[in-house]
Order: sequence, then C-alpha cells, then structure tokens
Amino acid sequence: MTEWVDKEKVFKDPVHDYIYVFDKLIWDLINTRAFQRLRRVRQLGTAYLTYHGAEHTRFTHSLGVYETMRKVLSHFERKFGWPGDERTRLLALCAALLHDIGHGPFSHTIETVFKFHHEEFSQRILLEEPEVNKILRRVDDQFPQDVADVIAKKDKYPLVVKLISSQLDVDRMDYLLRDAVNTGVTYGRFELERLIRVMRPEGNDILVKMSGQQTVEQYILARYFMYSQVYLHPVTLSSDVLLKHAFLRAKKLHERGQQLFLPEELQPFLGKDNMDDLTVEEYLRLDESVMMYTFHRWTESDDAILRDLADRFINRRLYGSILTRELKEVEKQTVRDMFRAQGLNPEYYIAFGHATGAGYHMYRQGITLVDDDGDKMDIADASALVRSLKPLTQHRIFCPKEVLRGEGSYKPIRGWLEALKI
Amino acid sequence: MTEWVDKEKVFKDPVHDYIYVFDKLIWDLINTRAFQRLRRVRQLGTAYLTYHGAEHTRFTHSLGVYETMRKVLSHFERKFGWPGDERTRLLALCAALLHDIGHGPFSHTIETVFKFHHEEFSQRILLEEPEVNKILRRVDDQFPQDVADVIAKKDKYPLVVKLISSQLDVDRMDYLLRDAVNTGVTYGRFELERLIRVMRPEGNDILVKMSGQQTVEQYILARYFMYSQVYLHPVTLSSDVLLKHAFLRAKKLHERGQQLFLPEELQPFLGKDNMDDLTVEEYLRLDESVMMYTFHRWTESDDAILRDLADRFINRRLYGSILTRELKEVEKQTVRDMFRAQGLNPEYYIAFGHATGAGYHMYRQGITLVDDDGDKMDIADASALVRSLKPLTQHRIFCPKEVLRGEGSYKPIRGWLEALKI
Amino acid sequence: MTEWVDKEKVFKDPVHDYIYVFDKLIWDLINTRAFQRLRRVRQLGTAYLTYHGAEHTRFTHSLGVYETMRKVLSHFERKFGWPGDERTRLLALCAALLHDIGHGPFSHTIETVFKFHHEEFSQRILLEEPEVNKILRRVDDQFPQDVADVIAKKDKYPLVVKLISSQLDVDRMDYLLRDAVNTGVTYGRFELERLIRVMRPEGNDILVKMSGQQTVEQYILARYFMYSQVYLHPVTLSSDVLLKHAFLRAKKLHERGQQLFLPEELQPFLGKDNMDDLTVEEYLRLDESVMMYTFHRWTESDDAILRDLADRFINRRLYGSILTRELKEVEKQTVRDMFRAQGLNPEYYIAFGHATGAGYHMYRQGITLVDDDGDKMDIADASALVRSLKPLTQHRIFCPKEVLRGEGSYKPIRGWLEALKI
Amino acid sequence: MTEWVDKEKVFKDPVHDYIYVFDKLIWDLINTRAFQRLRRVRQLGTAYLTYHGAEHTRFTHSLGVYETMRKVLSHFERKFGWPGDERTRLLALCAALLHDIGHGPFSHTIETVFKFHHEEFSQRILLEEPEVNKILRRVDDQFPQDVADVIAKKDKYPLVVKLISSQLDVDRMDYLLRDAVNTGVTYGRFELERLIRVMRPEGNDILVKMSGQQTVEQYILARYFMYSQVYLHPVTLSSDVLLKHAFLRAKKLHERGQQLFLPEELQPFLGKDNMDDLTVEEYLRLDESVMMYTFHRWTESDDAILRDLADRFINRRLYGSILTRELKEVEKQTVRDMFRAQGLNPEYYIAFGHATGAGYHMYRQGITLVDDDGDKMDIADASALVRSLKPLTQHRIFCPKEVLRGEGSYKPIRGWLEALKI
Repeated sequence: MTEWVDKEKVFKDPVHDYIYVFDKLIWDLINTRAFQRLRRVRQLGTAYLTYHGAEHTRFTHSLGVYETMRKVLSHFERKFGWPGDERTRLLALCAALLHDIGHGPFSHTIETVFKFHHEEFSQRILLEEPEVNKILRRVDDQFPQDVADVIAKKDKYPLVVKLISSQLDVDRMDYLLRDAVNTGVTYGRFELERLIRVMRPEGNDILVKMSGQQTVEQYILARYFMYSQVYLHPVTLSSDVLLKHAFLRAKKLHERGQQLFLPEELQPFLGKDNMDDLTVEEYLRLDESVMMYTFHRWTESDDAILRDLADRFINRRLYGSILTRELKEVEKQTVRDMFRAQGLNPEYYIAFGHATGAGYHMYRQGITLVDDDGDKMDIADASALVRSLKPLTQHRIFCPKEVLRGEGSYKPIRGWLEALKI
Repeated sequence: MTEWVDKEKVFKDPVHDYIYVFDKLIWDLINTRAFQRLRRVRQLGTAYLTYHGAEHTRFTHSLGVYETMRKVLSHFERKFGWPGDERTRLLALCAALLHDIGHGPFSHTIETVFKFHHEEFSQRILLEEPEVNKILRRVDDQFPQDVADVIAKKDKYPLVVKLISSQLDVDRMDYLLRDAVNTGVTYGRFELERLIRVMRPEGNDILVKMSGQQTVEQYILARYFMYSQVYLHPVTLSSDVLLKHAFLRAKKLHERGQQLFLPEELQPFLGKDNMDDLTVEEYLRLDESVMMYTFHRWTESDDAILRDLADRFINRRLYGSILTRELKEVEKQTVRDMFRAQGLNPEYYIAFGHATGAGYHMYRQGITLVDDDGDKMDIADASALVRSLKPLTQHRIFCPKEVLRGEGSYKPIRGWLEALKI
Repeated sequence: MTEWVDKEKVFKDPVHDYIYVFDKLIWDLINTRAFQRLRRVRQLGTAYLTYHGAEHTRFTHSLGVYETMRKVLSHFERKFGWPGDERTRLLALCAALLHDIGHGPFSHTIETVFKFHHEEFSQRILLEEPEVNKILRRVDDQFPQDVADVIAKKDKYPLVVKLISSQLDVDRMDYLLRDAVNTGVTYGRFELERLIRVMRPEGNDILVKMSGQQTVEQYILARYFMYSQVYLHPVTLSSDVLLKHAFLRAKKLHERGQQLFLPEELQPFLGKDNMDDLTVEEYLRLDESVMMYTFHRWTESDDAILRDLADRFINRRLYGSILTRELKEVEKQTVRDMFRAQGLNPEYYIAFGHATGAGYHMYRQGITLVDDDGDKMDIADASALVRSLKPLTQHRIFCPKEVLRGEGSYKPIRGWLEALKI
Repeated sequence: MTEWVDKEKVFKDPVHDYIYVFDKLIWDLINTRAFQRLRRVRQLGTAYLTYHGAEHTRFTHSLGVYETMRKVLSHFERKFGWPGDERTRLLALCAALLHDIGHGPFSHTIETVFKFHHEEFSQRILLEEPEVNKILRRVDDQFPQDVADVIAKKDKYPLVVKLISSQLDVDRMDYLLRDAVNTGVTYGRFELERLIRVMRPEGNDILVKMSGQQTVEQYILARYFMYSQVYLHPVTLSSDVLLKHAFLRAKKLHERGQQLFLPEELQPFLGKDNMDDLTVEEYLRLDESVMMYTFHRWTESDDAILRDLADRFINRRLYGSILTRELKEVEKQTVRDMFRAQGLNPEYYIAFGHATGAGYHMYRQGITLVDDDGDKMDIADASALVRSLKPLTQHRIFCPKEVLRGEGSYKPIRGWLEALKI
C-alpha cells in the first residue's frame, strides 16, 4: 500500500523547522489544485489588519497539521505500537493534511452570509473532486469516505478523530504556534515536543500522563491568551463586521436587481438559495484573490453604501468599537433608530458584537489525565487554573470612528449610550 | 514642526518585536491608501511557491525599514549628535517608510514586461498622489520633493541617502532578517543591534569601526546566503518565468486584437506604449489581488497557451530547470528550434536563465572601516572573506518538467543537450 | 554627580542581548572584588543537578537586574518624567546591581544551617566593605546607607523599593527569563518589553494599565510554572537535603571536637555562635569553590556518614522522594524510628519535605491595575486566573533510593508507609 | 547486547531542546563519578571572564555530543542502513559521550604547564577507571579498548572516528551551537538538522551532497567567527596568561622548596616529572573547584608575585594587551629587559601572544562534496569562500594594564615599542 517518494521531500518551515514527506500519497495530495488553492486563503482571515505579520495561509497551516500528526504517530508507534497498520497511519496523515481543504476565503464571515459550513465542502471535495479523490482511492475505494468520515468526526476511527479534532488535537497544536510566530506574540508558545511525549493512546481515547499536567495547562493557556490577544481582538472583529456588511449589501443589491460588479466566481453563491446546490467545482473557484478583487471593484460602485464599505475595508478605515453591557433587543432597536436619525443605515453602519464573538468556547471537558496506577481525571478537575478560565463575553458596538467620536455633524455615541444607561 | 501622536503607537512585529511610532506624520502616512496598498504586494514575489512561509508583504517590510532607521537615528543622535535637526530626522524616517511605495505586484517581472521602473513611481507618488503629498507638505512645501530626491539617490542629503540605499542600508538590514524569519532559514541572521552600534556618521559618509569588521562580514554573508538560498532559488526563478511568459502571451494576444480577459486595472498597462503616460492613480490600482484574479480567469482562456501558462502558475505546475554552461545565441536558437520541432512554442515554453539572474550584484565597494587613528579602508581590502564572494553566474534552461524528463511523446532534453555538448 | 564611562560598556547577554553601562559608578562597582565574587555563586544553587543548563551565576543575574532597571527607568523618564533627578536614578541602578551582593553559595541551605540572612550581609557590605563603600560614597556620604535602605525595603524611596522588591520587580523579571533560558524550559517566558510599557509610576506606587492585564497574567504564570517545574523540582529539593545534612553532620563533628577537614574560610561559620559576629571580610571569603572543595575533601573523611553524604552530593547519588500526606510529628517519629531500626541515622538519612518547600509564596496582593478613568483594582480581583493559583503544599519524604526501593537488606519504605496509612 | 532503560530518559537542553537516552549503557555511564566530574569543568575555561554567559560545563557539552551522534546515526540508519549492527552503534554513542572524559580544569593552560595531553587520560580512564571500565565491558571485553581507540583516532572504525573527530564531526557541531547560545552571540549558529541531512556514509568516508555546499560553508563560517569572537578573544587569552603564570610561579616556588599552599590533589602534578606516572585516580581528583580554591588561598600567599597573580585572576584585574608585528627573539628579549628595568619580573609580567594562539587551525582539507554522478571534490576546491579563510596570526603583548598605560611610576609601553619600531 505504501509508496515512498523517490527521495524524502522537505519543506522549510518557520514553526517546525522542517516538514518531512515520505509518502508519495501525501506528496501527490499536496500538489493537487484543490490543496494549492489553500495558498490563496489566509489562515486568520482579516487578522492581518490587526497584526501585520498574520499573512500566513491555510496551505502553510495544513502542512503544519500534517507534520504534527506525523510526529505524534511516530511517537505512538515507537512507544505504544499504535497505529501499527499502514492504512490507519495513512488515514491519520491524510485527514490531518486535508482537514481544512474546504475552507474558503474569510470563512467565518462568508459562511454566515451565505449560510453553509465549510466542513461539508471539505468532505464533498474528498469524494467529488476528481483529482483528490483519485489519489485517495489509490489506497482503496473506501479510503476517501473514511477520510471524510474522520473529518466529520464519525466514530469509526475514534483515535484518529480525537487526534484531528478534540480538546487536544494536532490542528490546534499547529495553529497556536503558527499564529504566535506570525503575529509575533509570545503568548501562544507551549512545549510541543513534551506535550506529544506525555500523550498516549488507550482504547478509544488519548490520555495524558499526570506528570504532564502543567504541559497541558500551558497549552490551554496558550489558547486562552491567543483568543483574547489575537482571535477576538476588537480590531479584527471590526474588520469582520465591514466584510460581512459589504456582502450583505451586495446581496441586497443583487436581490433588488441593481447593477453590481459580480465576478462569475461569486455568482453561484448569490444566485442559489441553498449552498448544497453548489457544485464542488463552483465552490473551489472562490479564493481570496477573487474576494479582494471584488472589493477593489466595489470601491468604485455606484451604490454609495457598498462603495463606502469596500473602501473602508480595502484601505483600512475600520470601524471602532466600545464596550457595553449585554443589550436587550429593544435597546438595540433604540440605538439603531438613533443611527437612522443621523442618516446612517443601521443595517450597515452598526453592529452588536456578541454575535461575532459567539462560537468561541473556552476549554470544557475532554482532556483526561492518568496516573501511574491508571486512575483518571479530567484536567479541569485536577487544575484550578484550568477551571478559572471563563469564556469571554464582551459585548461591543461597532460603528464608524467618526460616529464614535461625534465628529462633524454626528452626535457622539458615547453620550447617547450613557444617557440610555447602556 | 514635530507633532507627536496622542499616545505612542506600537506594532507587534516578528522581526523587531515592536515597531514604535511617535510622530503623527508617520502615523498618518501609514494610514494612506497608497501605503495600505502595500499590504497587497508580497515582499518576495513568487518565492512563496518555494518557501511557503514567504507570504509577508511590502507593508510589513516598509514598517521594518522605518523602525531600523528609527533605531539608527536614535543611536546616531545620542552618540554623535546627528541629525540634530528635526527636519532631517523626519526626512530620513519618511524616506525609509516610503522607499518602496511605488512597488507593484511581482515587480521585477512586471517591470520587464511593461518596461518601467517602480522607483520612478515611488517618486511620482510622493509628488502627485494627493493624500500622501498633502501629509508630507505639512512639514513644508519642499519636503515631498526632498523625500523623493532621497529615494532617487540625489546628493542633497548624502547621509540620509546612504542610510536608505547603499551597501549598508536599513532597507537591506530589514529584508535580510525578515525574509530569513519568514522563510525559516537561519542564513540571513546577523547582529542588527551590534551592526548599528559600530556605524557612525562622518562628513558625508557612514563609517564602520574597525572592531566591527566581523559584524559587517556576517551581514555581507547573510546577503550571500540569502541570494543563493532564497532570492535566486531555481524554483523561484522558474515561477518568474511562468509569470513573465503568461504576460507576454497576453500582450501578444491583445496586440493581435484577440479576445482576452483583461481587468480594467490592467488595461492602461497594455494600452499605452510608454508607462510614463500612466497616471499615478492608474498605477496604484494595480495590486496582487488584481494579478491573481486575472490569472484565475486566464486558466479558462480560449487561448491554449495562455490557459496552460496560467494554470501552471496558479496550480504550481512549475517549470523545471537544468544547469548549462553559458550558451551562444546560435546555440540557444538550436535549442529553440528543437522545441518548435516538438510542437512547443519556444517563446513560451523555454527560457534561458541568465537574463533572470542578471541585476544581482555581490558586494563591490562602499563599506569603509575606520580605525582608532582615523585610517580608513574598504571592507573588501580588509577582508579576504568578502573578496572571495563572487556573483553567481549560473546558466539554466527552464522548461516544462515533462519535456525535461522526456515523458510521453517528448524526447528528453538532457540527451539533446549532451549531444550538442551544451 | 554623573561621570560617564569613556565609551559605553557593553556586555553580551543571552537574555537581554546586550547590557549597557554608561555610568562610571556602575562600571567601577562591577569591578569590585565583592561583585566579582558573585561569579562564584550559582544563581540556582543545586538546580544544575536537575537541569544541567542551570550553571549560570548571580553575577550574570545581577547584571540582568541592573539592565532591566535601566530599561524601566528609561521608559519612565521618557513618558512620565520620573525619576527626573540624577541621584534617584543612580540609587535605583545601584540597588538593582547590588541587591544580591550578600548572597553566599547555596544560600538557602547555608542560611538554615548557620542561621543568618544574606540580606543583612548585603547591607553590611555596602556600608563596611571598603572598596564598594568608597565607590558609593563618590555620590555622597549618605548614598551607601540609602542603597542599603532600599535593599532593606525601608520606605524613604518607596518607588525604588517597589521596583527592586515587590510582586512586580526587576529582580523577578530577570530571573524568570534567565532561569528559563538556561534550563531550556519555555515556561518562564513573558513579554518583558510590553510589561515595562504598561507600568507607570504614580505617587508612591507602580500601577499597571488595565489593558496590560494579560501581560501581567503571563508574568505571574511564568512564576507559577517556574516554581513547580524548576525551583521546587523534587530532584533539586533532594539535592538541598544532602547539602544540608552534610553540613549538619560536619557541625556536629566539629562540636564534638572530632577531626574534620575544615578550610579556614569555613571556620568562622562553625566557630561563632552568632553570625552577626562575622566580619564582612570573613563573610566574603566564602564562595562555591570553597564549598565544593570542602565537599571534595569530605568524600575522604574518616566519618562514615559525612563521607557518604559528601560522596552522594559530589557524584550525584541523590536521595529519592515520595509524596505523602501531611504528617503529624508523632508519625514522623515513627518513620524515623523505622530508619534507625534499619541501621540508618534518621538525622541524616531522612528528611520531611515540607520545611524545604516553605518560604514559597504564590502571588498574593500588590499589583494594581488602573483603567482610563483612574479606577484601580488588584490583579487578583480582576483575574480569575490569578486567583486560581494556589501555593504548592506537597509533602515529601526524602531518603536514599535504595531504601525507597527496599534494595539489599532494606525493607521497602513504600510498604511501611502504606501499612501506616501515611 | 542492548539493554533499554525502563523508560526513556530525557534531559532538557538549551541547544537540542531535549536529549534522549534509550540505552541503559549510556545512562549508567552518565552516572559514573568520572562523568559527573565533568560538571566541575567549564567548557570554555576562562572565557566566562569575557562572556559572562560562558559558564556551561563539559558535562553539558558531552551530553550534547552524544545527542548529536544519536541524531546522525538515526538518520544514517534510516537512509543508508549504517551502522546496521548494534555494537557499532553503541561504540559510536559511547565514544561521543566519553570523548572529553579526560578533560581537566582549564585544560589547555594546565597541560602546557604540566606537560601532558588530556586525550591520553581520556583513553586511560576507559581502560583503568574501574566504574567506567566495568560498564563498558558489559558489551564485551574488547569494547573499552575499541572506544579508546576511536578517541585515539585509530583506524579500526574509520567512519566512527570521522564522526567523532574530523573537520565535520559531532564534537564541533555541538560546541559551536552551545558556545553561541551561552555567550549570546549569533555567529556560531548553523542549520544542524540540514547539515546532518546532507551527510552520508560511503565506504570509510563521510561525504556531503553537492547541494549541501552552502550548509557546510555556514558551518565552517560558524567556526571562523567563533574563533575570533570567542575562543581567541584577547580578554580570554589574557586570562589564560594569568592562570599559566600563576602556575609557573607556584611550580618554581615548589621546586625551590618554598612554603606554598598546595592541596593534596595538586601535589602529584607538581611532584612528578612525568605525568605518565600519575594514576588515573590521582588525575581524576583534579577539577575546577580544587583549582579555584587553590587560587583563593594563593591570594593570601607570602610570595608577592604569586599573591598578585592569583588576586588578578580571582578578582578579574586582567592583563591588557596590544597588537604587535611578529617579534624576533632578540626583540622580545629587549622588551623583557625593559620590564625588568622597571622592577617587573618578565617571566610573570609579560607574555608574547603568539604561543597562546598556536594550535588554532582554520579549515584545511577533509570535507568532501559529492554530486549526483558520484564525482567528488573537497569543499575548499568548490568554495572560494572557504579558501579565503586564513588562520589568525595576531601577535600580542600581554601585561598589566597599568604598565600599558604608563600609570604611576611606569613608563608607557606603547611609547617604548614605537621607539623600537615594534
């Protein structure tokens, strides 16, 4: 089953130093059109507008996830004889490499606007994209489905699934380190090599030696810090607001039948009600160059709102934000009315931040420590430090900075809100 | 003259850790459309196809050059009382920040195809782009011209010019370190802080203390290694060949009046004979998202050659290459004929590498060491190591890998060349 | 008052990259016999027997504390105009440099055995050691006393005292980073430059901007991790036990008048009842080379116990340890009796670990955050994460590994303890 | 033959991150008295007086050499099936671990004074030291001799010998990186992982792939820079002069039968004419704590010269130095006479630096590149850069700084030398 590449392939990498490819299967997957497309999708979406170093792509991250899995498997094989069989090894490597293959540009925003989940496309690509599917089928006919099932977290291969997506998975291990290196912050660093060394497969579970408690704490803290310092940074959230509002505006104009630059790559997304009707081929045509080019053109749109939003995004005239308490819907409506009264369409010129921050979960359950006698406990039970970590529930109002400051004819929003006791 | 920003602005940076902005002038320049555009121009062009980490942009590098200049000036001011006056300080900082403002996407290739120099546009932007120009004129009416002159290496401010572009300048200092960090190679590292500390302004020259000889050697070696390991890596050169050939093909089709996707941003470039006729506004509309999108669309062109070249570039089916001795024109013609005989248009399917490698110079003259008695000598006279560095003069033939290997109906090019004693 | 050194002096440093000395006062203090002696006192005592990289000295750390203070003062001066006066600046720098001048070899152990506090000798050195005192008096006659008072935490210069020893001081900042670099662990890393930037002097207090909460959390976590991973590592604690027991044995032999190798440098320590009777000159003769040489010679002692303990320490035949619950004195006595019954003198062959771990405090109170409105709160009130950190209260029994394992004629201690329900 | 340790042992290391021990043989060797003694011998002798971070020991380095060998063997085994047999693997690992076992404190100086070579003692320890020898004989009776022969560069195991000591050996690989990390300089860094990957065993030789030329250049340059920046730093050389002169003085006093503190560990060295008469046991009693303690006591010697030299060394009142041209013996004699005329004994108060610098060789021959066709060439033939590296031949006069400067009653030596045209 195993075909080795002629000579081992090596990628120089800022995180892992070197990424090694020994299997021809992996090498060929990397060279598919679908995988190369990930070079045109940034890992952190709009975060480069906050941290200028965050220009790295999902291509880079996917290679890193593969390499981390390779290291874990190598350790597990040597110490515990798992996976032992070649097919499971390849399954784990392929799933690691391809877990993000369905990611689109600025995914989180785009998926909200067009209502789909990239995970579904990840699975469909493995099954429907001819080039990728053909390579995977070299293992056997069932293999593409099995890789897709692992990505879908189905329970046929529970250990592989846990290594790909759980509280302690190779995906997070790579992205925490990679995002830390690229943004330049030190918060996301943890001892990857030691973390791998305290892990062990047991039955259908991945356990961690009790002596590794602090290594796991360090890893969980890396998540905690990266979320608040990078992933949920208000400036990044405000960039996402602009992106989303611009797309909502374009959608509205399109629905109204108004004239609008729309590249043919985007048309299926606006033209179809159900994204399940998109073909994989249509889906894969979308990347950041299409999106950025579209925004470029929208800076010259006839529609004043679209033009303004696109210009703000492209030229980094971002919205500002202020912290609020949690607002009731009626209060939000009052604020929206105030915007309207000032001549600003609240659909596009204001956003309430909670929705954006949703979907972020701190550590809950699922990392199990085991001591020398085989007794187990969840890290959250062992560690007061882990228990202390709470999800961030900041509420923010995002809107243009000139409105925040009350510049020109605008009344300062801060004053309003104070009057409203918001 | 000096306006300070309300509170100092800080950018987190993977190379310098932090980049500090104290001057409102600098802050406002960073926020111009023209400067933000540099976020959409990769620093190393196509090198990301060789080193996947090389995704950083000229925006990032420009901030780094500014920061390096800020450090040099701070050291010079404290130790040598230079520049002493505020205007010269601002001049040096602005020139450092804006020296690359005219860089376009994949500059070196594009400039060859369309015949212009980005340096000229850098200067024109300072003088003609209203937003940038207005900010610079806050210093005085002459200021934009002075910054442009420094970038054009005119000799009114010789020390500032030397710091911006010479054998030992802040531009190189930043890019060597930044490119090393992002590609992950260790070759480009040198001791920036010590290098700055051994430099001193004297008259119209920057001198280096004799005790700093090895620090300078290390810096020059960083250049040597980065050139051969990164900048002139055969895979990057072969990516440039594809890019260039695709544009040449598009130009030819356009001249012939054939149907061709051409975004309006590119039309002025193909429509005008002389790039001096481009307005600055037209010039600044071009960025990598336009280029990448165009390539995207060309992968579906009716023209088989353009379609093929675009597909190879976008999906990384790059040309391979082989080393040759220097070829005479008549020998090149023979090789071209052989390609034609196999049904391959040599204009697009073969390239001789020397031209691509041209423009690369190793250290020549210009870094002066000075001892405690004031005696001076060029580093090349002091250092056998520096003298030993010679420009790379590799000659290569680039062409599709299947031709190189003689796959399918192709005859293997290696055999041919051996028969020709090439 | 200020004398500058002819040219600035620079030390290459693994933590701060460079350490700068501009003041002749500082330069001359570094070159005193008393300060050079710190080269012969390891920073982490016996921790090098756990982490082989931990071979760095208090000399190195003292320079680092000085450099950290220099950076803080430079930031405070620029942003807040403090300290403003030259004498306070020198006071802070000297106190930073000299705060550990009284540290002896393996301080914590030695001080327990001989009953003294190195802090008192630090102060006495400044006042009584002629070379150091003379240099300090170049500022003014009161200066040595003021530096001593700062080290003694007297409240005449509250801000300087806070910077030298508080929950957020330059001493900790340096040692966390330095110990992390030398041991090779990543746990102790935090963003020093940003930490300094969020600090501000206000009245008699050092405050931290609210936006710096996570930076402070990271710093406090560095302490948490370094304590459990390095400072209180069981192997280091067990090395300390050997060291202490050997000295207790030597003291006992000396009191009994038995023959014993005792270098003249150690004689005053054993000969005097009260360490206050030691002269500063006598005190400063002690360093690690004396201690290590003494142990060397004790490996050939006529006394079997001393010989054995010294051999174990020198040749790293360390005691092992096991975790226990907290023991009552009567239980400890039972254990001691069991050791005696096996022919082992419990005074030297067993130790109960709690005493060793004492003196270790986790974060309590004292780092104050301040928001834009000037409202203040303690970090522990703001941060659930900080509140979650509890002092380590591990109890351990240390004894020879062969006893732990029940090798040879020994009965295994584990079995005993289980029988005793300990 | 192979016994594995119960669970793999891991050392945290600042250079290699982790050092892995799988073999019980290695683990037991590390725990011998002879190997633990290396904790008390600094890797860089007196260099800590120049770079305060250079406090690391030969223990640390020896572990690093072992780990580097382990990595090389692991690569060679996987790719080339060498060594293939278990005994050769163990031989290589043991030789790597133990190659420095005979190193004494401040070796280079001590060996000059007492006329012996530590290499001979390294071999004798393996054969004569009971604890080490017994462990090695667990492999077979011939094994200790074979390890000794490898260290002695005998040709029975040419590949292992080349890996231990050649132009491209694991000893240098570790010390360059380790010394760079500990001193804090960036000069010694090179890409260890890639260097290993381009190496291959072939017959009795280690070859390097042609594509690895620059990796080897970087490694050779690391040596070049480390020699001039660290190993031959004038301040380190001047520290060595003091050390040597103090010992020469002590030897002279001892020969004259004068009263002198001499610890029993040093007596055999002064008492025997031929160091071959030393027993291994006597030899191993010497370490840095003995040496440092002796110097300590000599600071209180009755002999003014010995007292002064010891005080200068311990308290870092080092000699200064000036560059000269190469001097003839008659000129040196003139200088010595001048010293004598000023009341200074030239035997102890002046040194001519060439001798100290001897023994330092730049790269000569021995690293062979091989291209895809199997053609070979020496790196010096392939690389102008390597050819440009010449041995340093600085000549220096070392003497007390007050004499250099002509302070007090001294006439300034500079003036003298200029008058002499030296």
